[in-house]
Amino acid sequence: MSVLIIGTGLIGTSVALALRERGERVWLADADPAAARLAADMGAGDPLPAAAQPADVAVIAVPPNAVAVTLAGAQASGAARCYTDVASVKRLPLARARELGCDLASYVPGHPLAGRERHGPAAARADLFLGRAWALCPEPETSQRATEAVTDLVRACGAVPVRTDAASHDRWVALVSHAPHLVAAAMAARLETAPAGALDLAGQGLRDVTRVAAGEADLWTQILTANAAPVAEVLAAVAADLAEAARMLEAGGEPGEKSVAALLERGQAGVDRIPGKHGGAPREFAAVGVVIRDQPGELARLFHAAGAAGVNIEDVRIEHSPGLPVGVAELSVRPGDAAALLDALQAGGWPVRR
Amino acid sequence: MSVLIIGTGLIGTSVALALRERGERVWLADADPAAARLAADMGAGDPLPAAAQPADVAVIAVPPNAVAVTLAGAQASGAARCYTDVASVKRLPLARARELGCDLASYVPGHPLAGRERHGPAAARADLFLGRAWALCPEPETSQRATEAVTDLVRACGAVPVRTDAASHDRWVALVSHAPHLVAAAMAARLETAPAGALDLAGQGLRDVTRVAAGEADLWTQILTANAAPVAEVLAAVAADLAEAARMLEAGGEPGEKSVAALLERGQAGVDRIPGKHGGAPREFAAVGVVIRDQPGELARLFHAAGAAGVNIEDVRIEHSPGLPVGVAELSVRPGDAAALLDALQAGGWPVRR
Repeated sequence: MSVLIIGTGLIGTSVALALRERGERVWLADADPAAARLAADMGAGDPLPAAAQPADVAVIAVPPNAVAVTLAGAQASGAARCYTDVASVKRLPLARARELGCDLASYVPGHPLAGRERHGPAAARADLFLGRAWALCPEPETSQRATEAVTDLVRACGAVPVRTDAASHDRWVALVSHAPHLVAAAMAARLETAPAGALDLAGQGLRDVTRVAAGEADLWTQILTANAAPVAEVLAAVAADLAEAARMLEAGGEPGEKSVAALLERGQAGVDRIPGKHGGAPREFAAVGVVIRDQPGELARLFHAAGAAGVNIEDVRIEHSPGLPVGVAELSVRPGDAAALLDALQAGGWPVRR
Repeated sequence: MSVLIIGTGLIGTSVALALRERGERVWLADADPAAARLAADMGAGDPLPAAAQPADVAVIAVPPNAVAVTLAGAQASGAARCYTDVASVKRLPLARARELGCDLASYVPGHPLAGRERHGPAAARADLFLGRAWALCPEPETSQRATEAVTDLVRACGAVPVRTDAASHDRWVALVSHAPHLVAAAMAARLETAPAGALDLAGQGLRDVTRVAAGEADLWTQILTANAAPVAEVLAAVAADLAEAARMLEAGGEPGEKSVAALLERGQAGVDRIPGKHGGAPREFAAVGVVIRDQPGELARLFHAAGAAGVNIEDVRIEHSPGLPVGVAELSVRPGDAAALLDALQAGGWPVRR
């Protein structure tokens, strides 16, 4: 497979790196030649020569507003046999591609559900798409050959192709990605003018709720405005629930209490529906807490003890203790493994709590 | 120091375990004798005998609504020389304690900023408070001796005492804990009736934004209603920002875009103010990604390589790949250590990306 990457930012360069690891031929192009050269220097492929043969697939990895015009230009120059893009919205680039008279038979709209809070080619990673969903939204006009070629490319990146249509895609990501981003931003915005004393009391919960709000504001503005109606619908519903919760808290009494309890219970039911790692429920693992010293090699000894006991650690969360030379490692293991791990660690002198 | 724990749930039993690790004398009492016996069986202390001497400190670890009446009863029986509680709100128990004529000289209202999504004595951990903030809100009547004794207890649990007053405490936790909890619940509530296809596209961002919404609904209802006014104020502001964002997205055009961009930028500024691990900013660490096989001992070898290079791993996030035998470990290290770690891992044959 030969692939042309048009746009060597975080996503384009990561696709290129993933394909290079599989030994595919990759050409790199970017409106900014310095960005394409940097990606090439990182081992992501070779700069596109002036008189290149058409690639099997061109990946258009530019911001949502630039997808259609880039597609039209690439098709006009015969850059590839088929085309896909990676924008977080799908109706907008598709509608513009129709307006511009692009060939829809060779275009498979796509969206890898992966990203980072950093951007640019230097932040790219070959493993960015491993195990992640990658939506593909072929139109009725899209040829089967194009869909198959782009599906192969998605699998070559280690991602899981999810077939849907552009309208469903946009409604779904409004719910699971775009609206949560603005909800996190609106909560984080309250901290902008918070007294320092309040921030001294911040815990892990606040960090988790607001983390995504650190993402690139310009790109997110483009994504959110391109998916305005579905995002607005979710936001309006969240805003209404929060405004109602505020009113019911002010009103107080039993009705207020019942209303707040009902919202909390709906929230629990919603969290329970999010698929977890290994395709299971999010809380399928048992947690084992171990006190560790904050020094090189300490975690290695801990993991070595777990490995020697034949226990696979599924996840780790380390809680540091500001100003103290210790922290706590919370190890997630399959529930059947927790007792064996506890025995092994205790036998090895680790301070664990059953 | 001798300490009486009244209420052997998650927090009370964790305080007891922390104090027992330091060798302190701990008595356990609970309205449910079976809960106190379970805590005693876990090594958290001894059940309170019928004719006990007064303890140095009694820790009232009961839900917010029960604090004052429990304090009044304990003081009437001369259970301890001084008292503290652990409720997530401070004005309500204090006001009720005044109404009930409690002795305020011996009472130091307290709140450890630590918890888990599980509850009950079996979920308790000696290390729950390590490095966490623990608010103490002495009143003008509170004696210096009581404040000193409770501060010593907080330090004995490994926590960091933060002195403030009840009104400031309640306003601050409304902002950094109570309102974020309801915001997460309101976002998660949208998932309750989401199509399955949407949840297939869920990523880490959604999991983080909604995680705390899995917490115990009954206890959180009590906390939120007891801190209604400050929580309602934050929620109303978040709701107004989200409703405005929904309107501006619907309206579209340049004003809509500018309004959304402004909210995203305020969110970034808010996230930047949250203190991180080791007291620094949240993004002070460099991230190094390594592809790992999903099998016992793999992480041990990785951490051993890091330790051998003299590099301390500050945090780990493991991203699993559903259906694939590999995952990605993202190691957070001090920026000055990243190059050495990359060199060491690459020399050891680990698939890393610079």
